Amino acid sequence: MHFFIDKNQLIDAIQHVNKAVSTKTTIPILTGIKFDLASDGLVLTGSDSDISIQVFVPITKNDQEIVKVIKPGKIVLPAKYIVDIVKKLPGSEIEFSLVDTFSVLIRSASTEFKLNGYDPEEYPELPQIEEDQVLTINSDLLKSMIRQTIFAVSTLENRPILTGVLWKLNQGKLSFVSTDSHRLSMREANVEENGLTFDNVVVPGKTLQELTKILEDDSIPVHIVVTDNQILVKMENVLFYSRLLDGTYPDISRIIPEKGKTVMTVTKQSLLDAIERAALIAKNDKTNIVKLSILEELLLEITSNSPEVGKVTEHIKVNQLDGEALKISFNAKYTLEALKAMDSQEIKIEFTGALSPFVLKPTDHDRILHLILPVRTF
Amino acid sequence: MHFFIDKNQLIDAIQHVNKAVSTKTTIPILTGIKFDLASDGLVLTGSDSDISIQVFVPITKNDQEIVKVIKPGKIVLPAKYIVDIVKKLPGSEIEFSLVDTFSVLIRSASTEFKLNGYDPEEYPELPQIEEDQVLTINSDLLKSMIRQTIFAVSTLENRPILTGVLWKLNQGKLSFVSTDSHRLSMREANVEENGLTFDNVVVPGKTLQELTKILEDDSIPVHIVVTDNQILVKMENVLFYSRLLDGTYPDISRIIPEKGKTVMTVTKQSLLDAIERAALIAKNDKTNIVKLSILEELLLEITSNSPEVGKVTEHIKVNQLDGEALKISFNAKYTLEALKAMDSQEIKIEFTGALSPFVLKPTDHDRILHLILPVRTF
Repeated sequence: MHFFIDKNQLIDAIQHVNKAVSTKTTIPILTGIKFDLASDGLVLTGSDSDISIQVFVPITKNDQEIVKVIKPGKIVLPAKYIVDIVKKLPGSEIEFSLVDTFSVLIRSASTEFKLNGYDPEEYPELPQIEEDQVLTINSDLLKSMIRQTIFAVSTLENRPILTGVLWKLNQGKLSFVSTDSHRLSMREANVEENGLTFDNVVVPGKTLQELTKILEDDSIPVHIVVTDNQILVKMENVLFYSRLLDGTYPDISRIIPEKGKTVMTVTKQSLLDAIERAALIAKNDKTNIVKLSILEELLLEITSNSPEVGKVTEHIKVNQLDGEALKISFNAKYTLEALKAMDSQEIKIEFTGALSPFVLKPTDHDRILHLILPVRTF
Repeated sequence: MHFFIDKNQLIDAIQHVNKAVSTKTTIPILTGIKFDLASDGLVLTGSDSDISIQVFVPITKNDQEIVKVIKPGKIVLPAKYIVDIVKKLPGSEIEFSLVDTFSVLIRSASTEFKLNGYDPEEYPELPQIEEDQVLTINSDLLKSMIRQTIFAVSTLENRPILTGVLWKLNQGKLSFVSTDSHRLSMREANVEENGLTFDNVVVPGKTLQELTKILEDDSIPVHIVVTDNQILVKMENVLFYSRLLDGTYPDISRIIPEKGKTVMTVTKQSLLDAIERAALIAKNDKTNIVKLSILEELLLEITSNSPEVGKVTEHIKVNQLDGEALKISFNAKYTLEALKAMDSQEIKIEFTGALSPFVLKPTDHDRILHLILPVRTF
């Protein structure tokens, strides 16, 4: 193996694959990044055996030479060292050449590293995924769907299936659902209808956290292949593999109330600010409870009370109100996270009683829904 | 107590005093910030009993009304809550009024907090310091003197005196010295000569860390009063008190070599970058050793070697060289910290042998000196 490569292009690629590398792995070879050089470019692979990321650096990009291949070859280099070394090298170009059995010489300007690596034949093969059915979605849309649901996944391992986000696809409608059994978030979007259908695809929360760091904020198409136990997300020059969660996701269709008895619309930011302040008093309680009361027509009171610390009272204008007055208590953290996940200026809240789950939605579309279980305080 | 205050001015003041408040204190009253309102303004005090910070918010600043005093009074409010509450209040003005015995109502726009506090009479008195002899120095100069010496203080408690920085003043020459017994940093500056003299004033490293956060980056005069066991730094509207360390600082005058046998000048940034890269290979060793060799006239080699990880070799141009060739090994971290503390583009290194301390200085002035003990590797 012998090649020259543009430093900045290598930094980008190596930082992507490094997201899949875990320092906690018990498999030594997985602490490394695989370099696989062929005549058309360099393939880098990182994996923690749950998630694998592969980046292709082509020999040219926009007519600029990026990789100059002298002799193809392979090696696995320790991620802990190679990432920092590449970032700190002085020149704009880096030369890699294999020396001894599994070591490389890395040269740039007046700097020379000799770095010991691992046998590339020991690196595990990535799963073979048949690409007969492919879902296509824009990168920025996928990224926002993840952001709007991921916070509600469970962090407890007692029901592992709830640590993932449920993906469903039917007749060109893609939906993401997450719940930790205290709250639920749902996001839908239309994608190109091509006869592809799935349900009970549960993508681990950790996978989505890493994926969202790699997804571009632009309307670039991303291609997704789903199998029984794997998902492959194909971006430009990047392949992102993950296992799926085993098990059946609970049926959530009967949890969401049909229609609220009390429906109000408020400006999102004013409700968010008021609950954030109210939560300051409750911040030492784990339950983090605030209370919402509809005071008189079009006036909302948010309060929180701690005998030791003190009390807070907030008043907010309601834009529109239908139905009965009501008092309800809820976990401030859950409600704040749901509000922050909505980009609309105005939101609608639908209550069906002080002890029943309530629903938050944007007023300008119905592709997002957050459901929160109230807390009994009396 | 009853007053109105400009929110942003209160945020600035409260963040300053909060730096002295410790959440780990065993004295409940010190978890609070003291509010003391008189007809000319508001005095805030925070203290962890080692460091105390007092900020005065005057009723007007640049002809703008900042505090509107309705009724003078005092209270101590829990820092953990009041800092966040003030930051998140919605209005540009905040009203404070005493209710019950030791509680306040805090109002701003449509928000009202009732916050429980403590009896202000229980708050400890700050030390009375006689201000007959005052040292005056510009804020930005004091700040850079701290930055250039603080990193070399000891973090070990076995010799407590070394956890502080030694301040000396004689004939208008102020000097700061720090050492952890492996390296030493010294910075001198001229201040106004007014007959004031002190030696063996040892200011705790933690004090200087907090002080540097408050000091402005401008050439504003700061007044310093030193007593046997206390130091008071007086900034505009801010008083910063700290205890001094007990004990006698070791005599460092004989540690610093008179003249080097090998003296070389190099560009600071190229040496810093080379040692940073070399340190990457050694980063898992606690000793963090890199080796410097003068190769031939005007060429320097920096290397680091780890049998497991690999090897790095760096070459740097020497600008000027006097004396014998030499090989020396040292702790990369100590040398990097010393280099980063020097603002000059070119530095001079004076060696007196492979096993003797070497000295780093800027080439453009002699107010800064860093001394580092080498490591024996052969």
